[in-house]
Amino acid sequence: MYDVVIVGSGPAGLSASIYAKRAGLKAVTLEKNPISGGQVLNTYEVDNYPGLPGINGFDMGMKFREHADQLGCEFKEAALLGIEKGITDSNCLDEGRELQAASAQNGGMKGYTLITDQGEIRTRAVIAAMGASHAKLNVPGEEELSGMGVSYCATCDGAFFKDKVTAVVGGGDVAVEDAIFLARGCRKVYLIHRRNELRAAAVLQKEVMALPNVEILWNTVVDRIEGEDQVEGISIKNVTSGECAKLPVDGVFVAVGIIPASETFAGVAECNEKGYLIAGEDCATGTPGIFAAGDVREKKLRQIVTAVADGANAVTSVLEYLAGM
Amino acid sequence: MYDVVIVGSGPAGLSASIYAKRAGLKAVTLEKNPISGGQVLNTYEVDNYPGLPGINGFDMGMKFREHADQLGCEFKEAALLGIEKGITDSNCLDEGRELQAASAQNGGMKGYTLITDQGEIRTRAVIAAMGASHAKLNVPGEEELSGMGVSYCATCDGAFFKDKVTAVVGGGDVAVEDAIFLARGCRKVYLIHRRNELRAAAVLQKEVMALPNVEILWNTVVDRIEGEDQVEGISIKNVTSGECAKLPVDGVFVAVGIIPASETFAGVAECNEKGYLIAGEDCATGTPGIFAAGDVREKKLRQIVTAVADGANAVTSVLEYLAGM
Repeated sequence: MYDVVIVGSGPAGLSASIYAKRAGLKAVTLEKNPISGGQVLNTYEVDNYPGLPGINGFDMGMKFREHADQLGCEFKEAALLGIEKGITDSNCLDEGRELQAASAQNGGMKGYTLITDQGEIRTRAVIAAMGASHAKLNVPGEEELSGMGVSYCATCDGAFFKDKVTAVVGGGDVAVEDAIFLARGCRKVYLIHRRNELRAAAVLQKEVMALPNVEILWNTVVDRIEGEDQVEGISIKNVTSGECAKLPVDGVFVAVGIIPASETFAGVAECNEKGYLIAGEDCATGTPGIFAAGDVREKKLRQIVTAVADGANAVTSVLEYLAGM
Repeated sequence: MYDVVIVGSGPAGLSASIYAKRAGLKAVTLEKNPISGGQVLNTYEVDNYPGLPGINGFDMGMKFREHADQLGCEFKEAALLGIEKGITDSNCLDEGRELQAASAQNGGMKGYTLITDQGEIRTRAVIAAMGASHAKLNVPGEEELSGMGVSYCATCDGAFFKDKVTAVVGGGDVAVEDAIFLARGCRKVYLIHRRNELRAAAVLQKEVMALPNVEILWNTVVDRIEGEDQVEGISIKNVTSGECAKLPVDGVFVAVGIIPASETFAGVAECNEKGYLIAGEDCATGTPGIFAAGDVREKKLRQIVTAVADGANAVTSVLEYLAGM
């Protein structure tokens, strides 16, 4: 029986591991991959985590994990398949019954049983830190040049493209915000959208259209990203006219959606219409004992710094929750 | 004329500097001391900032500052004396008038003039990141042994006292939370309060009183902290009976209050009853153009990880604010 199970070992999960360990909680962190770090692992360079300037994403993931290891944090390589309310671990029936009886006196069955591909795990509280992934264009060159000019985060990587030419693909709020952000430093920004109008908020549309160094390419899709070791250009196609063209660019920012990895929590805690777990700065969802930290949580800014803050806030909320159990 | 002035160069201010620079903002960070880092500088060891395990506080402050320097962030050693709404810099009257005229068309004078001991600085937005300081006991030994057994943050330093004996001084929520936190790892925790009842919330009082390894010493004050290179004990006095005693302890956690350094913003943005600037996770105060980041902001958990998150969130809000100006 754990005090808290942390699901995911990106920056939010690893920060939660560190804080839980230092708080004296019996905690385990589940990671579905054999390697910690989450999305950071696939980041070419991170330059906005104070204290670790210009670090390679893979190295950063390793450093975070080593930190947790040095403190003696417990990890388990296991994929979460589902969550059940209450203590139902069939391997620990006696203790389970006792716990159920004890918690029944408090007005209900407290705790959760996590079903994983490595068996069941019982816990008093859960921190959901499964992160999110960026929707892909699924065009040739995208995967090969990811981190070498192809990016999914303008806030993270935009500064590497100062005075260069970039393209943003998408038409929603994030795409337009990215174009505005990039236009501050880039010589020229193409905003490429497959439709003839943007989905972004009117105020953002107005702002982006007023920028002299942003050019919007309407009804246009990206067919291919070109380059050897580095993005050199893109092949684009006008879906109305069928016309094709090559556009030399130094970077491509893909902003066609984010997919939070919240599916295993769908029946347990409330998600918003985009699939993010709903929780405030304290990371507490509406479901007692379930907390959400990092990119999987509904919030404004998904960054490493905000993920590690969530890890700490979530553990603080877990401590409060356990105290009231 | 700056886009944003960041006041303070602790973790929140330095994170904001880094994010502002990478966002292409014209920004300057004011620091009243000749050295960056804020409260971190006086921390013996920091072990809960992922990626930098067991780092000395001074080294951490230096690393954060070097990171900002590498990116070319602008700093100015200046103490903020006051803030005036609107652009009133007498040295730039013409430009000032022009700006006033321009902003008057938008319904008012936008921007702020910061009065510092090094002259006036005009800016569109301000991030208040002045931090906070812990109230002291002001007893012999406290300053000398600070960082060597005397601590002002159980969440930060509690893990260094595993299986040891500690004392918490105070009677409010933080003191009682600290005692509960420490009791998870320490062999014994004394909670020392000068009155015969705690000010903390009833639920916290109930919890701390149920802990077998916490002993509350009522009507008791600490007269002196003893030790050579490390805390060895405290001299205590019962204020009712006048009786004195020596208590061997390995650590003393002082929880007699936090003083947010918000005074220069008092007339500009709203503070809560404890003096913290009122702002949510997005760091936006109720005053347009004024943002609060780090320990000076009203929030639950004051840690380095939450401070650096605030720095990033504040800059994101500044970008939105400037876009709407």
